[in-house]
Amino acid sequence: MSLIFKQLFERESCTFTYLIADSETKEAAIVDPVDIMIERDIALLKELELDLKFIIETHIHADHITSACPLKKYYPKARIVIGMENIDAEACSDIMVSEGHILNIGKFEITTIETPGHTVGCMSYLVENKLLTGDALFIRSTGRCDFQGGSAESLYASIQKLFKLPDSTEVYPAHDYNGLSVSTIGEEKKFNSMIRESFDQETFIENVNSLDLGLPKKIKVAVPANQSCGLIAEKV
Amino acid sequence: MSLIFKQLFERESCTFTYLIADSETKEAAIVDPVDIMIERDIALLKELELDLKFIIETHIHADHITSACPLKKYYPKARIVIGMENIDAEACSDIMVSEGHILNIGKFEITTIETPGHTVGCMSYLVENKLLTGDALFIRSTGRCDFQGGSAESLYASIQKLFKLPDSTEVYPAHDYNGLSVSTIGEEKKFNSMIRESFDQETFIENVNSLDLGLPKKIKVAVPANQSCGLIAEKV
Repeated sequence: MSLIFKQLFERESCTFTYLIADSETKEAAIVDPVDIMIERDIALLKELELDLKFIIETHIHADHITSACPLKKYYPKARIVIGMENIDAEACSDIMVSEGHILNIGKFEITTIETPGHTVGCMSYLVENKLLTGDALFIRSTGRCDFQGGSAESLYASIQKLFKLPDSTEVYPAHDYNGLSVSTIGEEKKFNSMIRESFDQETFIENVNSLDLGLPKKIKVAVPANQSCGLIAEKV
Repeated sequence: MSLIFKQLFERESCTFTYLIADSETKEAAIVDPVDIMIERDIALLKELELDLKFIIETHIHADHITSACPLKKYYPKARIVIGMENIDAEACSDIMVSEGHILNIGKFEITTIETPGHTVGCMSYLVENKLLTGDALFIRSTGRCDFQGGSAESLYASIQKLFKLPDSTEVYPAHDYNGLSVSTIGEEKKFNSMIRESFDQETFIENVNSLDLGLPKKIKVAVPANQSCGLIAEKV
């Protein structure tokens, strides 16, 4: 009678996938599943005898392709969930969420939080004291804001909202490139290199604009594929 | 007033390092730290204002070099802990542990469990309901037994001992090569591909002997370096 919560990793794009389930009712959600890890993820769902209810995206990813559509073939009752602003993904999604939507997994509630800025339609998800921040808030860093409707002003406001959660809230990002797996809101308010509590909006925008990052290798393939919830990936 | 527990990852050798601390007293232990991640690990210790009391090894690793000695330079009061059977590491270690030793981290106790088999001196460590299994028990697999005093018979007995812990005990291995991060004793008893509960010793030995693995790339450098608790790594 407890929450099953598993952090899963894909090494090529350093993406974290999360499995959330009620151990009693066996209802489950998977957040940001990756195409090339679908066999691992289905094996795990089968072993734990979980019934996949939601396939949740934090946003339209540019660095990897989701396994949402292929997963839904295995679990036809599963519903693909994505933020309302991702209008390109409307055709393939089942539930378009905005602020304060509740997704029930057995007796647990996943609450949706709009956190735009990395992209226009980024969502974070809160279950118990665990906050899945997608590419909004990373451990000691944040997402970039230079494509897909990104906006440093929006991301600043989004993270200010997350910083209002209790300091003990555990932060689980969609990526980490340095082998870190979990942080807390309290830690990020103090130590985030881009947006700690003492930084004003101007400082944050300067920090984001001074990121010198190339485009993700897979962006031209991944974005259209993810706008179809990974349907293209199935055909390749 | 709670346990700080962080799983850290090194992507090249797929090694997990664990940070264990008492958030109140600030006493900390690090388990299986990796040489090339020392800057990350020291930064984290400093940010969290932790006082490193123990640098703990599960065994003499063959695939990466420990940062034990370099870490001890930063934290001279820290004590290097390793299993009693690792006689080659006696000169550089401070505490040689066997079965049932208690290492106190603030109000938390780390209990040592002898789990030889992958190597002759492998130890597991239990703190609260979290079991650090080193290279004895992996998620859905086990360590190999073909060098450094490895013995499939010993590993079978070691894992039978771990399987007596409550099913809800969380399993944190020293490696995962498939992006999994945590399991439970209950899951491994059911689903481990090498040694689930229904497999007898003979089946396990067959499984281990049929592993077709090359030697770790770094074995010739890593083993002697780790027998000096990473002292050689400092000099390179």
